[in-house]
Amino acid sequence: MAQLTPDYEAPRRRGRGRRPADQVRAEILTAAGNLLLAEGMAGFTIEKVAAQAGASRMTIYKWWPSKGALALDGYFAVVGPVLAFPDTGDIVADLTSQLTAFVHLMTDTSAGRVVSQLIAQAQIDPDLAAVYRERYSVPRRAIGVEALTRAVARGQLRPDIDAESVVDQLWGACYHRLLIPDQPLTEEFAATLVDNLMRGLR
Amino acid sequence: MAQLTPDYEAPRRRGRGRRPADQVRAEILTAAGNLLLAEGMAGFTIEKVAAQAGASRMTIYKWWPSKGALALDGYFAVVGPVLAFPDTGDIVADLTSQLTAFVHLMTDTSAGRVVSQLIAQAQIDPDLAAVYRERYSVPRRAIGVEALTRAVARGQLRPDIDAESVVDQLWGACYHRLLIPDQPLTEEFAATLVDNLMRGLR
Repeated sequence: MAQLTPDYEAPRRRGRGRRPADQVRAEILTAAGNLLLAEGMAGFTIEKVAAQAGASRMTIYKWWPSKGALALDGYFAVVGPVLAFPDTGDIVADLTSQLTAFVHLMTDTSAGRVVSQLIAQAQIDPDLAAVYRERYSVPRRAIGVEALTRAVARGQLRPDIDAESVVDQLWGACYHRLLIPDQPLTEEFAATLVDNLMRGLR
Repeated sequence: MAQLTPDYEAPRRRGRGRRPADQVRAEILTAAGNLLLAEGMAGFTIEKVAAQAGASRMTIYKWWPSKGALALDGYFAVVGPVLAFPDTGDIVADLTSQLTAFVHLMTDTSAGRVVSQLIAQAQIDPDLAAVYRERYSVPRRAIGVEALTRAVARGQLRPDIDAESVVDQLWGACYHRLLIPDQPLTEEFAATLVDNLMRGLR
């Protein structure tokens, strides 16, 4: 069947010589992220990722210690661009646009269901919990803290703010509505979260 | 063995005549809440609650449509007093003391593990999700909104605040650290959440 491989698969160059390691790695991550978004952890296997990326399982095991680690790195790779943190110099605009993108990702795509099930499984699976934190939530949290810290340096926020707690009051508040949907997760909600913190409630 | 029932079990009056329905209901709820806290949903059965409360399974099924409904009502009954919402007239003090009690319940008792596993199971079990919201999270959310609304009426908060979003930025932020423990869930955190919102970040 090899000779029937259509041209659009040519970039994978199966059996036509080695791809650079960086390219293989990127293609594995893309395949992993897309598979996770399509099927959730329930349908996620290293075999499927290997087949999709045209890579060997051995290559994948060389770089990722577990299925969960591969899934989380893939998720980060695929949604990363959607969740890019703008830095226009205006912290209110940047927080609002980032949170709005996050809300749309959670509500308009399969990412919301995938993430809620990952968090759910992490409550009973310590290995997945460790991987989720190490590969996704800790780095994402750091990006938020850095943005807030830059805003402090620019004089837009008080110098004594606790940036970690602000992350919980913005993205954490959205996760709360994602996991316990008593109230809707909307653009308006995202904007209100920022406004509450900026203006204060008094 | 009935004649060996020690005196301290006398209030249950097994077989010694009917208890008032309200009392039976209260004892079932206490038994259900304590069983849930001791064993989680995994070890929670209507049989055990019935035995513990000295009530028939038929009585329980008459009042509760499902095991999940009984577990959630029992949880609310048992932790309700711990989570009582003070109304001293000072919203900052009241929010801080209520959140502090909530944080201690989640971190010092088995309630944290039980609640995180209930939320986890709710992600894959729509019936449990409905019961969790109907019997626990919606009524608890309403209590928070009422406290904030009273503070608006007293002039302690702006009249145009969105109280629902504040619930997500206080209790929701705590649930975020409970479920994704990248940062510790502490008294200091609870106080910081209130302070961030009251003073604003600018």
